[in-house]
Amino acid sequence: AGGTFLLNSPYPADQVWDKIPREVQKQIIDKKLTFYVIDAIALGKKLGLGARINMIMQTAFFIISKILPEEEAIEAIKHAITKTYGRKGEKVINMNFAAVDGARKALFKVDYPQKVTSGIAMTSPVPAHAPEFVQKVTGPIISGKGDDLPVSVFPDDGTYMTGTTQFEKRNIAVDIPVWEPELCIQCGQCSIVCPHAAILQKAYAPELLAKAPKAFKSIDATGPKFKGLKYTLQVAPEDCTGCTACVNVCPSYENKKEKTGRKAINMQLQAPLRKTEAENFAFFLTLPQTDPSLYDIGTVKGSQFVKPLFEFSGACAGCGETPYLKLMSQLFGDRALIGNATGCSSIYGGNLPTTPYTSRQDGRGPAWSNSLFEDCAEFALGMRLTVDKLQEYAFELLHKVCPEDYEAMRSADQTTQAILEEQRKRVAQLKTKLAPRRDPEAKRLLEVADYLVNKSVWGIGGDGWAYDIGYGGLDHVLASGKNVNLLVLDTEVYSNTGGQMSKSTPRGATALFAAAGKPLAKKDLAMLAMSYGNVYVARIAIGASQNQAVKAFMEAEAYPGPSIIVAYCHCIAHGIDMSHGFEEQEKAVKCGHWPLLRFNPKLIEEGKNPLSLDSKAPSITYAEYAMGENRWKSLKAIDPARAEDLGRLAQKDASLRYFVYEQLAKLSFDLGNDKK
Amino acid sequence: AGGTFLLNSPYPADQVWDKIPREVQKQIIDKKLTFYVIDAIALGKKLGLGARINMIMQTAFFIISKILPEEEAIEAIKHAITKTYGRKGEKVINMNFAAVDGARKALFKVDYPQKVTSGIAMTSPVPAHAPEFVQKVTGPIISGKGDDLPVSVFPDDGTYMTGTTQFEKRNIAVDIPVWEPELCIQCGQCSIVCPHAAILQKAYAPELLAKAPKAFKSIDATGPKFKGLKYTLQVAPEDCTGCTACVNVCPSYENKKEKTGRKAINMQLQAPLRKTEAENFAFFLTLPQTDPSLYDIGTVKGSQFVKPLFEFSGACAGCGETPYLKLMSQLFGDRALIGNATGCSSIYGGNLPTTPYTSRQDGRGPAWSNSLFEDCAEFALGMRLTVDKLQEYAFELLHKVCPEDYEAMRSADQTTQAILEEQRKRVAQLKTKLAPRRDPEAKRLLEVADYLVNKSVWGIGGDGWAYDIGYGGLDHVLASGKNVNLLVLDTEVYSNTGGQMSKSTPRGATALFAAAGKPLAKKDLAMLAMSYGNVYVARIAIGASQNQAVKAFMEAEAYPGPSIIVAYCHCIAHGIDMSHGFEEQEKAVKCGHWPLLRFNPKLIEEGKNPLSLDSKAPSITYAEYAMGENRWKSLKAIDPARAEDLGRLAQKDASLRYFVYEQLAKLSFDLGNDKK
Repeated sequence: AGGTFLLNSPYPADQVWDKIPREVQKQIIDKKLTFYVIDAIALGKKLGLGARINMIMQTAFFIISKILPEEEAIEAIKHAITKTYGRKGEKVINMNFAAVDGARKALFKVDYPQKVTSGIAMTSPVPAHAPEFVQKVTGPIISGKGDDLPVSVFPDDGTYMTGTTQFEKRNIAVDIPVWEPELCIQCGQCSIVCPHAAILQKAYAPELLAKAPKAFKSIDATGPKFKGLKYTLQVAPEDCTGCTACVNVCPSYENKKEKTGRKAINMQLQAPLRKTEAENFAFFLTLPQTDPSLYDIGTVKGSQFVKPLFEFSGACAGCGETPYLKLMSQLFGDRALIGNATGCSSIYGGNLPTTPYTSRQDGRGPAWSNSLFEDCAEFALGMRLTVDKLQEYAFELLHKVCPEDYEAMRSADQTTQAILEEQRKRVAQLKTKLAPRRDPEAKRLLEVADYLVNKSVWGIGGDGWAYDIGYGGLDHVLASGKNVNLLVLDTEVYSNTGGQMSKSTPRGATALFAAAGKPLAKKDLAMLAMSYGNVYVARIAIGASQNQAVKAFMEAEAYPGPSIIVAYCHCIAHGIDMSHGFEEQEKAVKCGHWPLLRFNPKLIEEGKNPLSLDSKAPSITYAEYAMGENRWKSLKAIDPARAEDLGRLAQKDASLRYFVYEQLAKLSFDLGNDKK
Repeated sequence: AGGTFLLNSPYPADQVWDKIPREVQKQIIDKKLTFYVIDAIALGKKLGLGARINMIMQTAFFIISKILPEEEAIEAIKHAITKTYGRKGEKVINMNFAAVDGARKALFKVDYPQKVTSGIAMTSPVPAHAPEFVQKVTGPIISGKGDDLPVSVFPDDGTYMTGTTQFEKRNIAVDIPVWEPELCIQCGQCSIVCPHAAILQKAYAPELLAKAPKAFKSIDATGPKFKGLKYTLQVAPEDCTGCTACVNVCPSYENKKEKTGRKAINMQLQAPLRKTEAENFAFFLTLPQTDPSLYDIGTVKGSQFVKPLFEFSGACAGCGETPYLKLMSQLFGDRALIGNATGCSSIYGGNLPTTPYTSRQDGRGPAWSNSLFEDCAEFALGMRLTVDKLQEYAFELLHKVCPEDYEAMRSADQTTQAILEEQRKRVAQLKTKLAPRRDPEAKRLLEVADYLVNKSVWGIGGDGWAYDIGYGGLDHVLASGKNVNLLVLDTEVYSNTGGQMSKSTPRGATALFAAAGKPLAKKDLAMLAMSYGNVYVARIAIGASQNQAVKAFMEAEAYPGPSIIVAYCHCIAHGIDMSHGFEEQEKAVKCGHWPLLRFNPKLIEEGKNPLSLDSKAPSITYAEYAMGENRWKSLKAIDPARAEDLGRLAQKDASLRYFVYEQLAKLSFDLGNDKK
């Protein structure tokens, strides 16, 4: 009792009391707290710090805690700022000084009555419609009461319920995107980049709007196949993190020619919109998924009609990795087995209390397991071998037990979603037929019948895994010839452990263990994989070409041998404004640092060059890309001469890289008849 | 007493008794042995089995041991032959049947007198001039009395005496090469391929012949620089293994045009030559090393004037690996630090009782240590970092302690042997100067002064290390930019552990774990290394181009960053006649399976293509190469259809590999001024 309570809130001191839930009011009164309020978000925005309010809150803490005399505390903070941010340049220092000074003025004491007055009650940690397990286990953990749970409530076989992030409404976005139907060209670009699956599209029959909430938005769906249907782009207001990536990639402006004015989506304060948009989102979820026969899943727009089976993860706002995972889950999630290297993607992917991997209406979704850091590729290979063996066994049994069904199921070319779904129907019929049978082989077939449908096996991890610690195993899997798909979420640095240099870190970039800029060029993982000749390889950057990224995923999965996709992922470790992460990706491609490519070994069999170089010759300099990111800029601040030297070499790396790829894409693979 | 003794000997039953040392005669008499003799070597030769006398000796064992009735034993052996060699074809079976039948006829009982009659005494295990350690420790181990040695005679710091194979005269060759001076063109080719450093050349002043044994051969040295000198090619008769590789590569025939008749070296029975040739060899060793100013060490002939610092190892007769090690030891052995992956090369390289690494007259020679299987490259990197740090430290101290010597030593461009030797002289002078000084920094400099001379750091191992188990670390070292030289002794199989498939095993070849022929193409380690762009890469096959191999070694060592040499090594695991191993190498190159190349990143800096393709377009088919080796032939015997399929793919692998390399070697690396 008698402590001090500081609240970061958009409401001023004279309004904030009644915005607080009753339960919290009671605690404040009971504990006789001194209560302060500050609008750190508004201040941060004003000063250009965005969501980085740590300096504001720290200053406020020192002022009200009185651990040091105020003037002394301020002086110490400013000294620390100069020391910490010295390398990042004067602008950053001044912004932080302004944050300190601003915090002093934005801090107000709240005089509150000695009685509970609020009309708001604390909401339950999970909604009432959540399943029993979520109510009994997930909810208490979310509420910080996980230690009270008995061991007996946890699954005893290591499996864990998925699809639970949807029940944890974090409401962390200050602003959320708001759709302007009339400006929208229904391209799906905002949806594909959203790192949190918080902006979704559906096309549906107009009569379904009958039960829609008043505020629910819709417009006529465009495109010949969608004639007569309605289209809605819907934000999940309580799951959105406010990263603004969607708005920044939206290509549709009010003034189309000048590209100015409102866009088809624009950021607005979340709080006033929360309730109506939450209702809209709930209604949106009741609409059926768009009929798959109306779109091509292998396109940007088409892929975004599929429900993401990876949603609302705890990744950083604006994360550059999660859009790839989400896309993969849309394209193949219904049949995916994922081995995931330890790292960011295993943390936000296999997090507790809630997990972002989820399932379709029919319960199909990715099976996911965390490997060690170093053995992700081998781990996925193990999944592949297991699946292959079980499928082989299932077909053997089928041949004995129901020979009449064998031919149709064995010959099904399970390379498209439609044919896969047909095979699933056959399996369902088979199961019905098998259920009453008592012969041991029929019983066994019933157990393994699901393996008659092809699975999609993925090994996923970061560059620390793929380029460094797990590279030996990754190489072994590439050499195995087995149908394993590897997805490298390349942030060019060990992101999850705090930003250490990896073999993927580009020349001149700073990182832990490379404070003076990495002296050597980035390892070319795509080139290494291409050297095998029987590995499908793609290098993609969804910010540079969404289209090429989707194509690469489709081809990689369809290729019957090993595939590797190296995906550029912008990251907070790069020292960038994350709302513009996808534009950074585009620059990386435009300067030649990250040439987009697809290498399809099937073309070699046809005597064609397997390499397709999918990005154009460099149109900006390396510096134009690099100097927008603190990982390079900071070297310039501390050692301009070295930055200049490394910059020149990095420019040459990029120029030469593109130049060589350009020529490689033109090599002949036609041996001619005499040489074959 | 009363046992049976079987001796494999060239002497018949009525002559053998007096060829046996007295000590052995006494034992035979004392133990009342029944004594049999067989000339298995002569029989093996006659039947085309060469030195493979196991079946002959086994049959003899069963006949005289009477474990089974003779007829029953013979039947069982023949049954086992059919089972064991069935896969290798009828010819092999018949040869072994003939060995069994031949053994019965070649086995004779020796009637011996009941007294010692021999004029021969057992020789000491090591010669009298061997150093004390060899006398006291090595000798007893060679004699099988190692268990009697006290622990105290062994070095307590882990270092071990090198250069001891020279004292273990194994005398295992049935035939040895004999030089015909008049036919010899003094090319050095026999010397460079000798796996055991048992054939050496020197050019020397004629007056040195004054003290030569009568039988010592010499001839006028050819070549302008050698005018007035004599030349001798000398065999080490007791160290030669009789592999015949030297004779098979000798290009000089009696009938030059038809390439028929005697060669400049020819095999002859060793026994009659042993004594005189041993004397000749001893005299040859007393001749001074040829003056280095007379030859270019970076040539085949020149390199063979340097004393091998790797000699007389316990590797298989005709080993395909050891010629590369020997060459490396000739070129850089005086300053080499070697980390050696576990495998064949660590077994014969760090063997006991005797070790093949040795030193020059002045005591300089390779420092060698065995790494684990998996971390050889990292192990060598550690050596590099240590050496670099010590050199840096030595120069720092030099600058303080003897500033007057600093400039000359710091600026010495230690890239040629001659300049290195000059630097050594400077170091010797410096040490003399430092010796009397008592200031701590002078004392410290004295300790590290040897590091003022550059070292040559090598990581050496087989394909199991480089392609598979140690590849992750090898890749890390390639990416490090550090001056580490990696030598991959590529037998395309795990040779030392019994012949398991590695990622280097070519398509269609059989191996353990690939009994049905490896289905996938060989991993292209050279291509992988080239993708870095700052790694010196060479692919060599000394049997195809000795010249290119020597060049590659010289360039790799001179390159200031990481280097990797992938060297084709024929191996007993290939199922070939080892005397023709170097011809197999040549075929591997001629069919396009093993394109020779050198990739020098320095050329990129000059805007030139770094890749030099050093072998010509395929001139024989893949089958012409492969069908000469049991690893492929055996598949044809057990599964001709699969052998055909894999053969076709392997042919395409080879054709396409060469075709792509050919184009890669023509790519432009000239960015032009506008792109730089």
